[in-house]
Amino acid sequence: MTPGIPDNMFLRGSVPMTKADVRALTICRARLAPNQTVWEVGAGTGSVTVEAALRVPGGRIYAVEEKAEAAALTAENCRLFGTHNVTVVHGRAPEALLGLPRPHRVMVGGSRGELAEIIRLCGRELLPGGVIVVNAIRPATLQLALDVLSLPPFGTPEGVLVQVSGLERLGDGYHFRAQNPVWIICAGREG
Amino acid sequence: MTPGIPDNMFLRGSVPMTKADVRALTICRARLAPNQTVWEVGAGTGSVTVEAALRVPGGRIYAVEEKAEAAALTAENCRLFGTHNVTVVHGRAPEALLGLPRPHRVMVGGSRGELAEIIRLCGRELLPGGVIVVNAIRPATLQLALDVLSLPPFGTPEGVLVQVSGLERLGDGYHFRAQNPVWIICAGREG
Amino acid sequence: MTPGIPDNMFLRGSVPMTKADVRALTICRARLAPNQTVWEVGAGTGSVTVEAALRVPGGRIYAVEEKAEAAALTAENCRLFGTHNVTVVHGRAPEALLGLPRPHRVMVGGSRGELAEIIRLCGRELLPGGVIVVNAIRPATLQLALDVLSLPPFGTPEGVLVQVSGLERLGDGYHFRAQNPVWIICAGREG
Amino acid sequence: MTPGIPDNMFLRGSVPMTKADVRALTICRARLAPNQTVWEVGAGTGSVTVEAALRVPGGRIYAVEEKAEAAALTAENCRLFGTHNVTVVHGRAPEALLGLPRPHRVMVGGSRGELAEIIRLCGRELLPGGVIVVNAIRPATLQLALDVLSLPPFGTPEGVLVQVSGLERLGDGYHFRAQNPVWIICAGREG
Repeated sequence: MTPGIPDNMFLRGSVPMTKADVRALTICRARLAPNQTVWEVGAGTGSVTVEAALRVPGGRIYAVEEKAEAAALTAENCRLFGTHNVTVVHGRAPEALLGLPRPHRVMVGGSRGELAEIIRLCGRELLPGGVIVVNAIRPATLQLALDVLSLPPFGTPEGVLVQVSGLERLGDGYHFRAQNPVWIICAGREG
Repeated sequence: MTPGIPDNMFLRGSVPMTKADVRALTICRARLAPNQTVWEVGAGTGSVTVEAALRVPGGRIYAVEEKAEAAALTAENCRLFGTHNVTVVHGRAPEALLGLPRPHRVMVGGSRGELAEIIRLCGRELLPGGVIVVNAIRPATLQLALDVLSLPPFGTPEGVLVQVSGLERLGDGYHFRAQNPVWIICAGREG
Repeated sequence: MTPGIPDNMFLRGSVPMTKADVRALTICRARLAPNQTVWEVGAGTGSVTVEAALRVPGGRIYAVEEKAEAAALTAENCRLFGTHNVTVVHGRAPEALLGLPRPHRVMVGGSRGELAEIIRLCGRELLPGGVIVVNAIRPATLQLALDVLSLPPFGTPEGVLVQVSGLERLGDGYHFRAQNPVWIICAGREG
Repeated sequence: MTPGIPDNMFLRGSVPMTKADVRALTICRARLAPNQTVWEVGAGTGSVTVEAALRVPGGRIYAVEEKAEAAALTAENCRLFGTHNVTVVHGRAPEALLGLPRPHRVMVGGSRGELAEIIRLCGRELLPGGVIVVNAIRPATLQLALDVLSLPPFGTPEGVLVQVSGLERLGDGYHFRAQNPVWIICAGREG
C-alpha cells in the first residue's frame, strides 16, 4: 500500500541497500502510478525495484544491474515479494537501456561513472511529462545530476538533501543512529 | 498514487503545514491501506488529511482539529482535492475522539498538551494490529511519545529524526534550504 | 591553539569518544578561558578533558569518571598531550563532585542517570556568571537538561542539535559518513 | 578565548553572516595560532575575520572583500571588537591577493566564481605546512573545492557536512530551528 517496507524484510547479501525512509521518499518523488513503464538504473538489492513494482500494477519495471550478484538478488527479492511486473536486465547502462520500451519514469540508484550519458539518453527516451529521479551519495554525482538536469528537455530540477537517524534502544532509553546523507534530485521532461 | 503532494498545491492560510517529504514519510510510516478507519489528531491545514484520504479508498479519515480556522482550511483542502472520505471534527482531543469508530490507524500531528492522554486513549481504542504515528518538533513531545509508547499495549516504538533541506536556486547555481528537524515516532498495538 | 584535535591522535581503547567537531563545539560553547576551574562529569576517553585543559592555562580541570578503564584512559591521554592541569577523579557524580573547588565551568558528557541531581548541584556550586554545558545523545537526557536548566539559578538555556558527516574517499570520489546527532545544551548561572 | 561569538554581538547590515557554530568549526578546522599570517577571501560581515584575529595575536588577517558595504562592515566589526591585526582589502580575489605576504592559513568564505583560480594561487603562495579551509553552501562550490584540493601541492582533503539547528522557545517548550547545511572542506599544503 504505502512505500517504506522495513529493511529487514529484504534479502540483502553483501550489496548495500537503500534504507526504508530514503527508499520511500525516492518512490514518492518519482510519482509512480499504475500502468507506468519504469526504468531503474542500478537496482542493487532490488529493494527499490520491489517497492516500485508494487506501485505500478499493470505497468513494468526494467531493473538494470551490472553486477551479477546484485542482479540475482534483485530477482530473488522480486520472487520473495511476488512482484511479477519486473524484468531484471543484467547489463551496464546506458547500453543496457537501448531497445527497452520508452519509460514514464526513470530511477537512477547507481550509474558507475556513466551518469551524464544515462541522463542524456533518458532526456531523449522519457515520454513527455515523464520524470527522472537520481539518488546520490557522492558530491560528484550530485553536481553532475544538477548540471545535466538543468538543461533541456528537463524542467527545473527539484530535490532534497535528506538526513535520517533511526531510533534505537540504548541502555534503558533511546538514541538516534545516523544514516549517511543522501541527495534525491528529480526533474520532469517538458513538452 | 504516491504520497508527497507538492506544498504549493494546498491552500495554507496562516496555519503551519507539514512539508511534502515529512508528510510523505508520515503517511508511509502509518502503513495506510484501503478501507481503514483513521484518526488524525491536529489536522492543521489538512495536508496530511488529504494524503491519507487518498490512500484509504473505502475507508474514512476523522480529522480532529480544535482551531476553527484550521478546521475550515482542512475542509477546504479536502474539497480542493475531492476527497469525500473525510469527516472534519471541530473539537479538542482527547474528548473529541470519544464516540468515533475504533481506528486502524492514528496519526498525531498536534496535541496541545494532551499527548499522554491521547496516546493512552488510542491504546484502548486502536484495533489489534493497529498503528499510531506521532510527529514531534518539540523535545518534550518526543520524550512523552517515547515514554507512553514504550508501555503496553504498544510494541517496541520505532522512529526517525528527519532533516530535509530543499534544493533552491542561488544565483546561477543551487543551494539547500533547511527545514526544521522533525521526529516521526510510531508503534503498533499488540495482541 | 584552536579546539578540534583529530580523533586519531587520542588513545581510545573501547570507550566511546566525542568526535572532533562536536568536541570543538562543546569547548566553544563552554567559553573556556585561562585560570578557570572546570568540572568535567563523565570524562570518557579524556578527549574533551585534554582540549579543555589546553584552553585553561593557570586553571584546573577536575575530570570525574566512574569507570576505572575510562578514568585510566583519561589520565593516559593527559600524559600523551602533556596537560598537567588535570585532576582525574575516579568516582561517581554527583557524590564525587562534593568538596571540589567551586567551578567557573561545568561540562557534562555522561551522567549515568543522575543528570538532574548533577545539574542541581552545579546550580549551587557554579560561580556567579559560570556556564554549564551538557552533551546529550538520548532524548531523555535532552529533555531532563532542558527541564532543569530552565529553572533558577540558570538563565535561558541555549543549545544546538548538531549533525556532522565526515568526508571520506569512496572509489575515485568522496562521500559523507554520518555521525550520530548530538545535542549541546548550555546555560549560565545568573546573579 | 574560545571561538563562537554569539551572532547578535556583531553588526550585520544586510550582509549574510556565518552563524556562530559553523564559524567556530571553521576557525577550529583552520588550526589558527599566534603569529600566523591569514588570508580571508570573502570577509562578508567580518564575523570570521574578528574570530580569526582574536586567535592570531602577533599575526595578521588580510580580509579581502569585493563589496564596499561588506568591506565597511568588516572594518566596523573589527573596531567594535578592538582587533587591530586586521587589514581589510577592498578588492576582488584572486587579483586582490597578489602582493600580500605569503600566508600560513587561507580561509575562503566567498569566491564569486573564481574559486578554482583562488585555490590554485593559494597552492603556490601558502607556506609549507599551511592550511586552506573552504566554506561552501552550493554543491558546485563543494565539488570544485574537492576537485582542486585533491591535486598537488595539497594533501588529502578533509571535511564535514554540518547541519546545525538552534534551540528556540516555542510556546511553553522548545523546538529546534534549522540553519542551512554547510560544507567545510580543508587541505594542507604538503612539502
